[in-house]
Amino acid sequence: MGSKTVKARTLKGFRDYLPAADIPRQGMLRRITKVFEGFGFGPLTTPAIEYSEVLLGKYGDEGDKLLYRFDDNGGRDVALRYDLTVPLARVVAQHRPTAPFRRYQIAPVWRAERPQRGRFREFMQCDVDIVGEASMRADAECMMVGLAVLQALEVPGYVMRVNNRKILDGMMERVGATGDDKFAVLRGVDKLPKIGKDGVVAELLTETSLDEAAIGRLFEVLERPVGNIDELEQLTEMFGDTGKAGVAELSELLRIVEAAGYSGQVEVDLSIARGLDYYTGTIYETFVLEREGYGSVMSGGRYDDLLGMFLKESVPAVGISLGVDRLLSVLEDLGLVKPQESVADVYIALVDDEGFGEMAAMARQLREAGLNVEQSLKVRKLGKQFKAAHNRGIRYVLLAGSDERAAQTVSLKDMDTGDQVSIAAGEAAAWLTERTRP
Amino acid sequence: MGSKTVKARTLKGFRDYLPAADIPRQGMLRRITKVFEGFGFGPLTTPAIEYSEVLLGKYGDEGDKLLYRFDDNGGRDVALRYDLTVPLARVVAQHRPTAPFRRYQIAPVWRAERPQRGRFREFMQCDVDIVGEASMRADAECMMVGLAVLQALEVPGYVMRVNNRKILDGMMERVGATGDDKFAVLRGVDKLPKIGKDGVVAELLTETSLDEAAIGRLFEVLERPVGNIDELEQLTEMFGDTGKAGVAELSELLRIVEAAGYSGQVEVDLSIARGLDYYTGTIYETFVLEREGYGSVMSGGRYDDLLGMFLKESVPAVGISLGVDRLLSVLEDLGLVKPQESVADVYIALVDDEGFGEMAAMARQLREAGLNVEQSLKVRKLGKQFKAAHNRGIRYVLLAGSDERAAQTVSLKDMDTGDQVSIAAGEAAAWLTERTRP
Repeated sequence: MGSKTVKARTLKGFRDYLPAADIPRQGMLRRITKVFEGFGFGPLTTPAIEYSEVLLGKYGDEGDKLLYRFDDNGGRDVALRYDLTVPLARVVAQHRPTAPFRRYQIAPVWRAERPQRGRFREFMQCDVDIVGEASMRADAECMMVGLAVLQALEVPGYVMRVNNRKILDGMMERVGATGDDKFAVLRGVDKLPKIGKDGVVAELLTETSLDEAAIGRLFEVLERPVGNIDELEQLTEMFGDTGKAGVAELSELLRIVEAAGYSGQVEVDLSIARGLDYYTGTIYETFVLEREGYGSVMSGGRYDDLLGMFLKESVPAVGISLGVDRLLSVLEDLGLVKPQESVADVYIALVDDEGFGEMAAMARQLREAGLNVEQSLKVRKLGKQFKAAHNRGIRYVLLAGSDERAAQTVSLKDMDTGDQVSIAAGEAAAWLTERTRP
Repeated sequence: MGSKTVKARTLKGFRDYLPAADIPRQGMLRRITKVFEGFGFGPLTTPAIEYSEVLLGKYGDEGDKLLYRFDDNGGRDVALRYDLTVPLARVVAQHRPTAPFRRYQIAPVWRAERPQRGRFREFMQCDVDIVGEASMRADAECMMVGLAVLQALEVPGYVMRVNNRKILDGMMERVGATGDDKFAVLRGVDKLPKIGKDGVVAELLTETSLDEAAIGRLFEVLERPVGNIDELEQLTEMFGDTGKAGVAELSELLRIVEAAGYSGQVEVDLSIARGLDYYTGTIYETFVLEREGYGSVMSGGRYDDLLGMFLKESVPAVGISLGVDRLLSVLEDLGLVKPQESVADVYIALVDDEGFGEMAAMARQLREAGLNVEQSLKVRKLGKQFKAAHNRGIRYVLLAGSDERAAQTVSLKDMDTGDQVSIAAGEAAAWLTERTRP
């Protein structure tokens, strides 16, 4: 081994979650998993590393540049996954599971983006997708899973903004935007909530060949009220066939979501464009109302053409993706997620070295009853051991000196109240379970 | 988007876990997490990518070559983590958490090794470590966590083979091996179970400067019975100070483990050497008896010098690592882990399109009672829907035609027995919970 000291540091845009931050985070991931499985989605695990050609050309030129791409030790051109959607498409093309294929995946993805608040170069995505089902019921189910997750996580105020790529295509037709102009208009529309109408108009005038009249026709659509299904459906008159189809899909989707009682947090927003190239129909983004500046915490949509990049046939697909690390940043910022230093329900203090074996046996007994138990490995002053437990938020301390061990009793101290009781050793598991497992 | 079809494939040494394989695997990971937290270990999450200098020089020359190392988009020399131990050492040096620092981490690691049965280039490691505690009680606790995990996973016959690097150092002193000879002897000893005494002797004669007399002195130690603590302690006479210290540590460790009732699956094996460079004391490897050929499924040890590579002080540390993907391969091979196609407890069939909304509301009600529910998104012949549920191992199917919906009743079919009952819709959650949640 070398003798030079290496500086201990993480790469910019990457972070460690120490236990105090990771305990609530893992708790969130468990609750998310429970909701996903509650909807009957099964887990999928795919490699972090894919052939580059599997990932390239799916996320737009911008996305391709953000890939962590390299030659592996065998000279293969590989890249770290950028999302969980393209690997899913690859899996479906490779393994051909029975349709509809419903899976969830909870795994990190990597993007070499400029780091900023709430944005990391490595972040955990939690995705559910349904592959092989074309009806809006699949879009609705993915939306509802997402909304059920935010509900389970007790996220305070949030809104899911929904649109349809076909409506955006209808807008392009309406203003006569083609080729590069089309992407410039999409980018402009996407920025509307951030830079406002004047900003977007200025940008479109300089960056596209559209004139003021064309841009006016764009805003006629964008400024139409779409607060309910009736208003939305009145948009139809403004569009050709593609735009009409988009309006029909979106209103069907809203009807399903409403019937299932989830419409309260859903609103139509014609400026939602989604950055990724592969969307073809429904698209949605979700914002925590008090922290919209963090960007969307959960988004997705329908991508009926993506499978066609791996197969010679078209396979419909739709999904949603929760960025749990960004959501966690938001909730921390709102003071709704607090550090938790320990997972232990009880701390077993060590009074004397002779007692170690018996305390280890006691720890085993408590664990078998389902309790989380940290056993002190060292004799220290009792006050210090109590303090160590208390500082780490472990409410109960169990201890037994030689007299207690001889009498087969233990002391249990409640660090919140300061109360201490002495009970039979055999009763400790029940005593603690009653107080820590609601 | 491009129009060329890309071949859907995974890299050699990497694999997808589709739901049928991933459902039991995720179940294993949850049980492992429960045991880790049962011992009071909290979670830690670290980045997949580290500065290369953080990882280099920790795993020996062989290990360095197996790193997935590349220049990132900003030209930084980075590498994917090779294990979870070195990132832990980096974390402790960087964040200086209060000692003893007890953490678990469950995360994939990457090694560009030649793939073989049960060995992958990406595999999930499940580690617990205690940093900042020098006593053998910490070594014992890590061993016991590991043994408790195998017990919780109902792994059939297994043995944890324990040794101490200081005993190996004592052997080196005894045979006069220094420099490169030392590593050659370690490698030879490590191969003893595979190639036998004759093979090792032949290898050492060609690859080292040791003569037959020296090699004989090595085998005098290796062939001594060490089946109990007394026999182990009698080894002391064969060693100088370092070897003596190793024997003392190992016998102390065994006494603790025995007192806690875990000694049945533990044996001393002086040929255990562990491939990684950083171990300094206790080392252990664990084998499933009926499938030893897969190699160790759980291993670890004490690495008191590793932290010194990041800090100017020495910090004691010990840990254990379970290779859950290899263990899963072993259990699959033994027929003890079977594919499970779905996580759903109940499948809600769709009788007619008009019923979709009411069935969605029923699904929501069942989910709120904690059940995992897959709702059919499509009207198909009932026989087909029953078959779809049955093929995927979902035992119960719930359905309601228009008459039943009018009467607020549902039918519940048990796909195992073929029995079908009609009950009040409001009773369905209780009926199903009783049958699916033991």
